[in-house]
Amino acid sequence: MMAKFNTSCPSGFPEWTPAQERVAQKWIATIRDVFEKNGFMPITTPLVEREENLLSKGGNPKEMYVLKRILDEEGDSSHSGNALRFDHTVPLALYVARHFNELSFPFRRYAIGPVLRGERAQKGRFRQFDQCDIDVVGSENLSLKNDAMVAAVIIQIFERLMPEQKFIVRINNRKILTGIANFLNISSQKFLEIWDHREKVTGEEFNKKLNELVPSGKKEKFREICDFAITQKKNPNVWHSSDWENWFDVHKTFGMLNKESAEGAEELITVCRILRNDLGISPKQFEPDFSIARGLDYYTGTVYETHLVGYESLGSICSGGRYDDLAEVFTGKKLPGVGISIGLTRLLSQLFEAKLIDVDRSSPSEILIVSASEKAEKECLALSSQIRSWGYPVENYLEDKKLAKQFDYANKLGIPYVIVVGEDELNKKCVQLKNMKIGDQEEISRDTLQAVLEKKL
Amino acid sequence: MMAKFNTSCPSGFPEWTPAQERVAQKWIATIRDVFEKNGFMPITTPLVEREENLLSKGGNPKEMYVLKRILDEEGDSSHSGNALRFDHTVPLALYVARHFNELSFPFRRYAIGPVLRGERAQKGRFRQFDQCDIDVVGSENLSLKNDAMVAAVIIQIFERLMPEQKFIVRINNRKILTGIANFLNISSQKFLEIWDHREKVTGEEFNKKLNELVPSGKKEKFREICDFAITQKKNPNVWHSSDWENWFDVHKTFGMLNKESAEGAEELITVCRILRNDLGISPKQFEPDFSIARGLDYYTGTVYETHLVGYESLGSICSGGRYDDLAEVFTGKKLPGVGISIGLTRLLSQLFEAKLIDVDRSSPSEILIVSASEKAEKECLALSSQIRSWGYPVENYLEDKKLAKQFDYANKLGIPYVIVVGEDELNKKCVQLKNMKIGDQEEISRDTLQAVLEKKL
Repeated sequence: MMAKFNTSCPSGFPEWTPAQERVAQKWIATIRDVFEKNGFMPITTPLVEREENLLSKGGNPKEMYVLKRILDEEGDSSHSGNALRFDHTVPLALYVARHFNELSFPFRRYAIGPVLRGERAQKGRFRQFDQCDIDVVGSENLSLKNDAMVAAVIIQIFERLMPEQKFIVRINNRKILTGIANFLNISSQKFLEIWDHREKVTGEEFNKKLNELVPSGKKEKFREICDFAITQKKNPNVWHSSDWENWFDVHKTFGMLNKESAEGAEELITVCRILRNDLGISPKQFEPDFSIARGLDYYTGTVYETHLVGYESLGSICSGGRYDDLAEVFTGKKLPGVGISIGLTRLLSQLFEAKLIDVDRSSPSEILIVSASEKAEKECLALSSQIRSWGYPVENYLEDKKLAKQFDYANKLGIPYVIVVGEDELNKKCVQLKNMKIGDQEEISRDTLQAVLEKKL
Repeated sequence: MMAKFNTSCPSGFPEWTPAQERVAQKWIATIRDVFEKNGFMPITTPLVEREENLLSKGGNPKEMYVLKRILDEEGDSSHSGNALRFDHTVPLALYVARHFNELSFPFRRYAIGPVLRGERAQKGRFRQFDQCDIDVVGSENLSLKNDAMVAAVIIQIFERLMPEQKFIVRINNRKILTGIANFLNISSQKFLEIWDHREKVTGEEFNKKLNELVPSGKKEKFREICDFAITQKKNPNVWHSSDWENWFDVHKTFGMLNKESAEGAEELITVCRILRNDLGISPKQFEPDFSIARGLDYYTGTVYETHLVGYESLGSICSGGRYDDLAEVFTGKKLPGVGISIGLTRLLSQLFEAKLIDVDRSSPSEILIVSASEKAEKECLALSSQIRSWGYPVENYLEDKKLAKQFDYANKLGIPYVIVVGEDELNKKCVQLKNMKIGDQEEISRDTLQAVLEKKL
């Protein structure tokens, strides 16, 4: 009798089907390639860090998972006090602290891998999910050019991942917003939270919330600022004007509230200018957007979000920004950085659900080799070694099943071609090459097989 | 004042330096490529599974890590009862159970990623380590050809990873050993354990241990078996004879102890024949070895180990075998499989320590672009976009530092070339290309730069 086990994945710990996984792996390979083409080094930190270190850099104890052994042996305390990483940024800070003297600055690293958060289980929220992060960390200083470069890397990635899909990187500068908050005499944390939720609430709710906070003498000026921001958002072409000096003037007016806002505006203009003029990025792929706050994060300057045009309800698929202090608490040193993170698991699960990505193929094999006669079996094994040496993924069907069943296997896995070898083909030194999509079959001589495959694959 | 944090990695949770990580990523890419070239599908299961499922398939409660939240909210029980995976095999069984009706059999999957074991901390033992597994799982039956194919995949991998290094896949069949145990009337578990430790103890200790167990009337026959096994091990050329029929006879005699041993011998011969005759694998890359038992695992037929020739003290770098029952407890179905696993973290840490692998380069960048004048900065950014579009990893030095410092950065990261552009180069439409290894510098016109880089990179 069989014991009853609940074999489903634990709540919040998803897994892909083979066909989805194939897409996920391709995306990771592309992301990794672009990161490396831009000189970012791969760094893999442990899944597990000391609990106190994670808590000291903003870890939420309600969401943090700690590690325990089921049976703890007495006297072995080395298993206690550790917790699972909830992002890649705190581990980056620890990595820099651990290896400070071996590293060269600016330190450009990428990290791709799972992080764990014990959040409430709900649709679209995962307790384990992959994040793909890049960060540049400077020692003492870090040029603003890095802020533009990081956005350019993200643009390169989405151009390759979704060439048909329009997307836009939205950029703001936190100093503009904290400048407004200071001008209004509002706590900047409070202001950023409300500002960040602007698009999640109705205009009335938003106005009501802020109106309660804004001192009566400044309501008019604040309405001007809001109108300005909203107008820009609704008329992105303002930013796409080739007359950047004009945009500069407009913006400067906006930034004149106080020194902080002016500095933020200046930085935002610089980043956009480098993107447009020096890196040659099309203004269709990025825009300043004053609505972005990234309220709950530790950013101090540039902030980014990325949206798929036409699918804004997916939210930001890639976010980040500049921070003044990566690891001072661990290193005693000033280490400013700028980084961005693709929330891969969440993004892919949304794209799969919206059927924006084809998932019709499970197997990497381009060819399944099938033997139609016992005598051909040896030849079929040798043939797969040969085809593999030409660079194509290929497998043999090794079980003793009817041909129909073997074709069925190729179909189910989405393997595009089947090669059949029987006694006839052995004698004639040829193979039957069947295209599984359109169903036609050709006889190809062994001499020309490589050339034929090169054309088709 | 700075609080004192212990920022070191928790005990047993290692991390690589950037240069080591670069090697690890290249190895993973090669392993992944060979797996896919052989038609294995990538599958990533969650890090976390239900505790009872892991325990039901041999999880050791003393080594298993469970997941807890630091602060558990009342009423949310969905965080309890979960533990971290300790291998990729139990998650494979669960994956098959979860997706049984969507999968096609034989199901060929690979898994690359970390597993966690709360072992005692000791040198060379890790609590988190990457394993790279392939398995083929059949429904009801699975041809013995798969056992040969799995060994062939491993041989392809190490040929690519370490082309200069001799390695050998050692193959045995568990049935031969359980047959010997039955013949001797010894519990096969006891016998396998001692047999498995043969190479870890002195000959005397080994003989003493077994002699205590072997009934007196069978001591002579057992001595014959041991002598035979030892002779084969010391004279591997016996197996390398091209006269496989002769080898077959020798082995058949050995396998005549009882039906079980004979069946094991027959299977072992078949696997070796397919490797040699059908897959064309050189007999220098594999050999039968009766000393292999894989004592603590669940194997029922073929077993594999892999050794680096000249570095046998590293132990087996890649092990596996055939099992009758993958997931009957979860599915109620008979699912035989065969698989093998590369213990990547342990292997690389040993190779790094033995200095068998060069780790002299941290950055993926082939070129660092350096601006020698403010006027050239824009050109330098445009140039890196262009070089990247030619397919080369490239980065700009973006900070305002002296040239010497920028060259130093390239040297430390092992970036092989630096391109310098100043006002002169702007005017002459050329660049200075410096080879960082040999130190020479050439002036290259922009028109010929792509051709020059193609030659050098």
